[in-house]
Amino acid sequence: MTHSFAPPRLERGAGIAATPVGAVEPKRLVLLGATGSVGRSCAQVVADSAGRFRVVAVAGGRDGAALARSALALGASFAALADPAGYAELKAGIAGSGIEAAAGPEAVVEAALREADLVVSAIVGAAGLAPTYAAISAGRAVALANKETLVCAGEAVMAAARRAGARLLPMDSEHNAIFQAMGGRDPATIVKMTITASGGPFREWSAERIAAATRAEALAHPNWAMGPKITIDSASLMNKGLELIEAHHLFGVPAQRLAVVVHPQSIVHGLIAFADGSLIAGMASPDMRTPIAHCLAYPERIVSGVAAPDLAALGALTFEQADLARFPALGLAIEALREGGGAPTALNAANEVAVAAFLDARIGFGALSRIVERTLEAMRAAGETSAPTTVAQALAIHHIARDRALALLA
Amino acid sequence: MTHSFAPPRLERGAGIAATPVGAVEPKRLVLLGATGSVGRSCAQVVADSAGRFRVVAVAGGRDGAALARSALALGASFAALADPAGYAELKAGIAGSGIEAAAGPEAVVEAALREADLVVSAIVGAAGLAPTYAAISAGRAVALANKETLVCAGEAVMAAARRAGARLLPMDSEHNAIFQAMGGRDPATIVKMTITASGGPFREWSAERIAAATRAEALAHPNWAMGPKITIDSASLMNKGLELIEAHHLFGVPAQRLAVVVHPQSIVHGLIAFADGSLIAGMASPDMRTPIAHCLAYPERIVSGVAAPDLAALGALTFEQADLARFPALGLAIEALREGGGAPTALNAANEVAVAAFLDARIGFGALSRIVERTLEAMRAAGETSAPTTVAQALAIHHIARDRALALLA
Repeated sequence: MTHSFAPPRLERGAGIAATPVGAVEPKRLVLLGATGSVGRSCAQVVADSAGRFRVVAVAGGRDGAALARSALALGASFAALADPAGYAELKAGIAGSGIEAAAGPEAVVEAALREADLVVSAIVGAAGLAPTYAAISAGRAVALANKETLVCAGEAVMAAARRAGARLLPMDSEHNAIFQAMGGRDPATIVKMTITASGGPFREWSAERIAAATRAEALAHPNWAMGPKITIDSASLMNKGLELIEAHHLFGVPAQRLAVVVHPQSIVHGLIAFADGSLIAGMASPDMRTPIAHCLAYPERIVSGVAAPDLAALGALTFEQADLARFPALGLAIEALREGGGAPTALNAANEVAVAAFLDARIGFGALSRIVERTLEAMRAAGETSAPTTVAQALAIHHIARDRALALLA
Repeated sequence: MTHSFAPPRLERGAGIAATPVGAVEPKRLVLLGATGSVGRSCAQVVADSAGRFRVVAVAGGRDGAALARSALALGASFAALADPAGYAELKAGIAGSGIEAAAGPEAVVEAALREADLVVSAIVGAAGLAPTYAAISAGRAVALANKETLVCAGEAVMAAARRAGARLLPMDSEHNAIFQAMGGRDPATIVKMTITASGGPFREWSAERIAAATRAEALAHPNWAMGPKITIDSASLMNKGLELIEAHHLFGVPAQRLAVVVHPQSIVHGLIAFADGSLIAGMASPDMRTPIAHCLAYPERIVSGVAAPDLAALGALTFEQADLARFPALGLAIEALREGGGAPTALNAANEVAVAAFLDARIGFGALSRIVERTLEAMRAAGETSAPTTVAQALAIHHIARDRALALLA
């Protein structure tokens, strides 16, 4: 399939792409994960920014009809669906529009490689790894909302970004806050990097009650409206563990300088501390439009539709230590981060399987971390957690971990 | 008097001076206001940093014996006392040390112009203006803890800094926090800049009780150990008004984008907000060693002896709106900031007179803002608040305001 006839891409340093306010050419975006929670928020920011952005390609997972609606609404010229089973629905949805369509994982990679100034990587799960890696390897600036790319294959992906000169912009609220707090400073000057956790719906629950939590209880996040996988991970605090691993790769900060603090209001998202006692915090209301608008417009600023937090109106910001006894998933992730090698890859894959089983009501909430823990134990015993240096090696560990976790479920 | 035989100064961009860690040559400092609260904290940071800094000159106000002790402790080669009445004590204190000494305002200017990599401007009150302006005009990097330099003559001083390429590093905790939060960003991208106020000892007092407050009550600041003038200004919130005026000049942010929020714990010191809803906060424990260490080492980082705030240990950070009805001094300062011209200069001078009278028990706390208000009214009526474009014009307005305020006291 040939690429669209976009004008040649201008090289602007290490993948930094920005259209000054008032410039004629809109910034060209590829939106991977267009039908998900982050993708829909991206579409909203794009729609609200009056022609500042042009979405050249969208990609989705399984819902062909939803992807068709997204492509039509955004005026994309290419729509790629990961699962060929939804291709007919996609084609039907865009019939007569002139939008090009394709299906299968290769189609998503093709979307990621369309000529663009910024690729938004917002596909949930390991499915986002290949297209994101392709975009990074091609030197594209990538706004990263997909955690698995770095959790699963952080070393290989960061090495590819360095080789290709690809700029990574963190779109997760925590990493975006830290990126903004850093303001280009050398990570070596940071003595401690902290991400906050809302504490999720079970923050004040006993270990026993958490173990018996239902699907509906785990999906009732107090602050954030997100997809189901990340919402469960937020309830178990595994999400914070994955974010620590992601922060380690994104910012090059060693494991022992990374920390989590519980902050129920989700206003402060990340903090960096220096030897002189200075502490810089990145804050925002818990609304993805802020980090999305920051990434899309970077290094410019645009209106996101979300105002900065009004601290006097909020009254109080509270903080407490994370309780690893009640939230063992966080402890497992910290352990995997410190261990390094293939441990984070295996942790993430086992967790994917466990969360899917919980969402399918096949296991209880208390079993989530046990499956992850036992998968890691089995893989360590079998010598299956050596460090992956390529994405292929990382994916191999990922699949071994998935198989082992599935076997534990059976 | 000839300058010392220091090695020729290396030019490093716009007055940025920094010695890399491990470099042989220590960073040369001039310490103006060595015997005051900030000066003593500077001396502590210098003493704790194992030869990283060399204090070439110190200057003080009236206490010759204290300045002599400071010069000896810091190993300065020159000590300048503003008030010649203390010269004999200074000379007696340094007898046999080989330290050069001089007295009078010109001597302080000479100290400011000694060959150095950074001049710390920590003289309290308008007395700091002339030596600070001299250092800035000579292109020296200046760490600014003296508010009056910018409040009294902001336009002229900032113009001189631009002409001479002098780097200004804000040493006040609020401006230092904002400087760190900005991380070199363009001030035009900031939609709101907020400094915090502890609220002082009278935060929860009624207007009537505040008006009748005693000297001891006003000097009992809940969080900060500072000199008496700034402590009284903190109790009236005039200090926040002066800081807004200072921020306006330092960061080039217009008056209507500047705000104050009350934050009793004094952990968050300043915040900047962007159009996309991002809010970056500069935090530190309420200990001047953090902003001092930041300025002295900039752009490197050193250990200050103060750890970054532990948010989980603190538990809660609270915020409330500033009450201009109970704290009229803040309202007067905001009004003067918006009016511009000579109004901030006059406000500051009248406040200096009023605070001195309060500290001498000649007026009550409630009279502080009345004297400032009436001075400004009289000067506006007499056409005496036109914009000063030079330091001399600013000082003229300053002295007119002082005379008018003294007349009101009589």
